[in-house]
Amino acid sequence: MGVGELSAINGVAGAYTEQVKLIHIVGTTGTAVQKRNAMIHHCLGPNPDHRVRKMAFVRATSRLIPGRSTKRYPPTSAQRTAGWMTSILRLRRSIIIQRVLRTCLETSLPVYIFVPMDFVHPLVIPPAPSQPLDVPPAAAAAPLIETVLSELYSARSPVILVDALVSRHRATREARQLLDKLRFPTFSTPMGKSIANESAPYFHSTYNGKVSFPGVAAFVEDASDLVLDLGPILSDSNTGGHTRTIAAEKLISVHPHELVVRGKSFPGTSIRAVLAGLAAAVDTSKLPEVPRPDVLSPPELEVDVAEEAITQSWIWRRVGEFVRPGDVLIGEAGTAQFGLSDAEFPENLTYLTQIYYGSIGYALPACLGAAVAKKELGSEGRVVLVTGDGSLQLTAQEVGTMVKLGLENVLMWVPVNWGGGQRQSADAAAG
Amino acid sequence: MGVGELSAINGVAGAYTEQVKLIHIVGTTGTAVQKRNAMIHHCLGPNPDHRVRKMAFVRATSRLIPGRSTKRYPPTSAQRTAGWMTSILRLRRSIIIQRVLRTCLETSLPVYIFVPMDFVHPLVIPPAPSQPLDVPPAAAAAPLIETVLSELYSARSPVILVDALVSRHRATREARQLLDKLRFPTFSTPMGKSIANESAPYFHSTYNGKVSFPGVAAFVEDASDLVLDLGPILSDSNTGGHTRTIAAEKLISVHPHELVVRGKSFPGTSIRAVLAGLAAAVDTSKLPEVPRPDVLSPPELEVDVAEEAITQSWIWRRVGEFVRPGDVLIGEAGTAQFGLSDAEFPENLTYLTQIYYGSIGYALPACLGAAVAKKELGSEGRVVLVTGDGSLQLTAQEVGTMVKLGLENVLMWVPVNWGGGQRQSADAAAG
Repeated sequence: MGVGELSAINGVAGAYTEQVKLIHIVGTTGTAVQKRNAMIHHCLGPNPDHRVRKMAFVRATSRLIPGRSTKRYPPTSAQRTAGWMTSILRLRRSIIIQRVLRTCLETSLPVYIFVPMDFVHPLVIPPAPSQPLDVPPAAAAAPLIETVLSELYSARSPVILVDALVSRHRATREARQLLDKLRFPTFSTPMGKSIANESAPYFHSTYNGKVSFPGVAAFVEDASDLVLDLGPILSDSNTGGHTRTIAAEKLISVHPHELVVRGKSFPGTSIRAVLAGLAAAVDTSKLPEVPRPDVLSPPELEVDVAEEAITQSWIWRRVGEFVRPGDVLIGEAGTAQFGLSDAEFPENLTYLTQIYYGSIGYALPACLGAAVAKKELGSEGRVVLVTGDGSLQLTAQEVGTMVKLGLENVLMWVPVNWGGGQRQSADAAAG
Repeated sequence: MGVGELSAINGVAGAYTEQVKLIHIVGTTGTAVQKRNAMIHHCLGPNPDHRVRKMAFVRATSRLIPGRSTKRYPPTSAQRTAGWMTSILRLRRSIIIQRVLRTCLETSLPVYIFVPMDFVHPLVIPPAPSQPLDVPPAAAAAPLIETVLSELYSARSPVILVDALVSRHRATREARQLLDKLRFPTFSTPMGKSIANESAPYFHSTYNGKVSFPGVAAFVEDASDLVLDLGPILSDSNTGGHTRTIAAEKLISVHPHELVVRGKSFPGTSIRAVLAGLAAAVDTSKLPEVPRPDVLSPPELEVDVAEEAITQSWIWRRVGEFVRPGDVLIGEAGTAQFGLSDAEFPENLTYLTQIYYGSIGYALPACLGAAVAKKELGSEGRVVLVTGDGSLQLTAQEVGTMVKLGLENVLMWVPVNWGGGQRQSADAAAG
């Protein structure tokens, strides 16, 4: 509470904005001093309310804005996203934990569990095995799947976009199965990279509005008659600074909790269920054959051949060649994010970055988290961090944690004095 | 906004809780993208409200709690504590700045000035010289001053407590003048140390409820017939874990915006005006002579003489002997705060610490700020920081800023592996 909770709140806001599952367990004052609003250190101001919700921005940004659907991002009630361990009933406390963790999994948003000091030691009763924590989403309705499939069958120049909310809502496996069956020309957004298999013959490059490789925007936006848009998150840096223009009547958008087919909304559908339903039901013999348009190959710039120094246009594609299947690659906000959009990743890479929230200093602790997870899971592959000396200074302490935990599988690449990405970011926000 | 604003919010909450003047200037997105809730990087969630008030805890903790006066801490409206530089009128924008800065000075609370990107370059018109920024408080009413003075004249065993809100509300000079005239037995609280001249013959030691030096609690709480209580902030670590028990009928409490004389409240009085009024009007010939009670001398513990290692009970009084008049001494949360309560400071020392909010990592950036201020003011004396290796890790980056700024007058003392204070803190909150 107080100092610890507020020190962590920027990270929580990042998880909220990027739709990343995060469980924040907060130790608090005991319930007796809470009741009399005692001025205990780490509380806020006079007559302190020890339970003041500091994550007020959640409610503020979840409210319905007229004319703009928020169905694809369900408003999360305080009760669902935060639980206080203060029931005297042992089973009740475990049910609260269960409810909060389930909300985390279902919404892919951060949640809080508050544990007052007098409730640290009391035991809980585990919920019955008949009440699993992770409830799979309900299957998508067959007529809805048929509607989408008939659109796919009748398309002549379909395109697929793969965006970040696919992986954030745990639909990566289902998406890959579907892509392998459809084999339509496929692009990632900057935030969606590494979800699609980038070495597959149907994969092209990054679609980032008008700042994509030459020819890509025209191919996606103009030459297509159908765009299957998986898990879009339409922030500025993920849409070429809002230069993405795809007509609504050619879009089939699969949002985490809503399907939109050429402007018609079907709320309450889970992205994982929709992609699984499509992959299971598709009759590949009915799909159009779409030849690979060779005109979309990445450009080889003359400057890269003639230049004796390392150039931005050269280095990032080499980072893509350096990483291997099974690796986790983490790109820091700014330069690395913009550069890595140009890279082509190997199959089965996990690319972690925070493009919408873009909090400088994010990448190093994210690298720590990935390395811990890889170690605990006994998973093969390296954890590769690309950051800068400026970003590093915000969270450099976590290098100490890496050493303490004996994480030996981490590669850090820290170019010095690269500020280009930060400048580009600032310009884009000028509006 | 967003990432920067939330990264700083723990520091802002500390200033709010400790009543420290802080001006947070926040650069934001341009007004055009704000109007359409554009998803610009660093914003929060979908359909982002770019102006969501993240400092929601201010309103939450300022609300009136029945039966507990908040008059001494005026609720601060959003309009008074935050200003948006979005008026098209040049004079209006400077008036907004003026209003916000005046609120900061009057309330000693943090304030925000938000500058959208399209309002960074437009010039403002300075307010008229007839409208000064810092308006001195209205003089305290003469009958009120007389009421307090007659209490002081008729007391037989008066005691004075000096607490942190004296200096936070810029009444240190007035308090010192008054203390020098009254010459009553005087004690500091842990948070109030260095406001009173600790080498004055009337000064004794730290009063911290029942965990003061032997004899102090009985002298202050039981043997007194009047306690003049200057700028109290009654948090746990400033009251010996809420063991302070002084009968309301013997208390004259001078709060920042309220005077309470033996239970009777006089709201709307400024602490600075009250102390100035008392110092100006007191007739010292009418004051009681109070002999210095020698029984209250600090104890010399046998362990300090026999021990070959450095002991907690020995070291902190030596730190008090080490610092010199004109120095600024900064004590980190935990061990240093508890220990420095035992030290006796030289005259004209400034002691900075954050005992109520107690955010670990506070002291090093506070030291940086003090060193910058001393350099800019051309003020004599050193800046002495006492912290620990654990605390240092939270904000160690600011050592780099010190080096960059060429601050050569800083002494840092960093004992390694001292965790006692943190443990004591945690126990106190168990409630």
